[in-house]
Amino acid sequence: MKLSNDMQSELQQIVDFCRLIDKEKFVQRRTYLSDGERFENDAEHAWHMAMMALLLSDYSNEKVDQLKVVSILLVHDLVEVYAGDTFAYDIEGMKTQRERELAAADKLFAQLPENLGQKIRSLWDEFEEWETPEAKFAHALDNFQPLLLQNASGGRAWREGERKLSEVLRRNARSAEGSEVLWEYARKHFIQAEIDRGNLIDDENGRE
Amino acid sequence: MKLSNDMQSELQQIVDFCRLIDKEKFVQRRTYLSDGERFENDAEHAWHMAMMALLLSDYSNEKVDQLKVVSILLVHDLVEVYAGDTFAYDIEGMKTQRERELAAADKLFAQLPENLGQKIRSLWDEFEEWETPEAKFAHALDNFQPLLLQNASGGRAWREGERKLSEVLRRNARSAEGSEVLWEYARKHFIQAEIDRGNLIDDENGRE
Repeated sequence: MKLSNDMQSELQQIVDFCRLIDKEKFVQRRTYLSDGERFENDAEHAWHMAMMALLLSDYSNEKVDQLKVVSILLVHDLVEVYAGDTFAYDIEGMKTQRERELAAADKLFAQLPENLGQKIRSLWDEFEEWETPEAKFAHALDNFQPLLLQNASGGRAWREGERKLSEVLRRNARSAEGSEVLWEYARKHFIQAEIDRGNLIDDENGRE
Repeated sequence: MKLSNDMQSELQQIVDFCRLIDKEKFVQRRTYLSDGERFENDAEHAWHMAMMALLLSDYSNEKVDQLKVVSILLVHDLVEVYAGDTFAYDIEGMKTQRERELAAADKLFAQLPENLGQKIRSLWDEFEEWETPEAKFAHALDNFQPLLLQNASGGRAWREGERKLSEVLRRNARSAEGSEVLWEYARKHFIQAEIDRGNLIDDENGRE
């Protein structure tokens, strides 16, 4: 099979991009893996959630296009190869996150052939806009997965960070929009369980 | 939203499975990441290839169902949480690989609710059977991605392993069935490039 020069050059751009995004494996998050020893990186996180989308999409509030959810989840942290991970409980970092990530998105997706770059970027935009059933479910999983790991790793990161329930609830303020079932499960089996084990400070006194 | 007891128990099975497969992040491969310092793990590998399926599916020989390719790639190494990674150039290990992985598959997928377990297992079976356009393209990517990393990491693993061209060609004997374009690209830009850099031994003397 013979490619035209234009097609050769497009393929080269895509392969270069595939090489570039290897960097996502070096972007460290603040969640311990289930062994409680090592932080997760962005690539591992994205794989885990894409798998969870295959396994849990029946629990989305609304019917979702599975390819779109999986694609959104695979792509949703790509901009962090330039912008770095912004810790969900870092209030100062969160203030500049949107601006830093937009600049990273402009730089990153422009490296793909135009049509493909637009397609991949639109998945990232859809996640950020948080409006479609797929984006809402992707966010629900993006919140559920670290709670699962928090619990699996013995609540270590919360204990070390002296994390408070109010912070966790603020981070999860919109989780139920994507999946009431998963949010209720997480509330009971991950969050309350860590309060009971003394790893999360209950500063809400039963208020919700 | 209230789940029935049966549904609660199914959800519990799936969440337990999501926790179990976190172990895929600890299964180490023999390919260096692009920094040339650290080996890749199975979860990172699966994420990278699922992304590459989104980016490169136009280069499949046959038209493919993208959701199926991505799903196959997300799932294809799951059995290694029990069976471990079998190094592609370990001839002794390869002899028992199929048997070890079948036993792992039986044990692993039985932990999901029956319908879902069958669905996920059928993706793994499809990859193993190497017959459908999606399975062939998934294998093409499963071969292309480590070649890309081999080249990106300066050919270190080949140099250290004193790897020969004949071994690489044997491993890639069926790569072109999934994508002639990607195989030709890899042949020229990854394999020949590492021969030229002195990292891969050309024991074929121009024969193919």
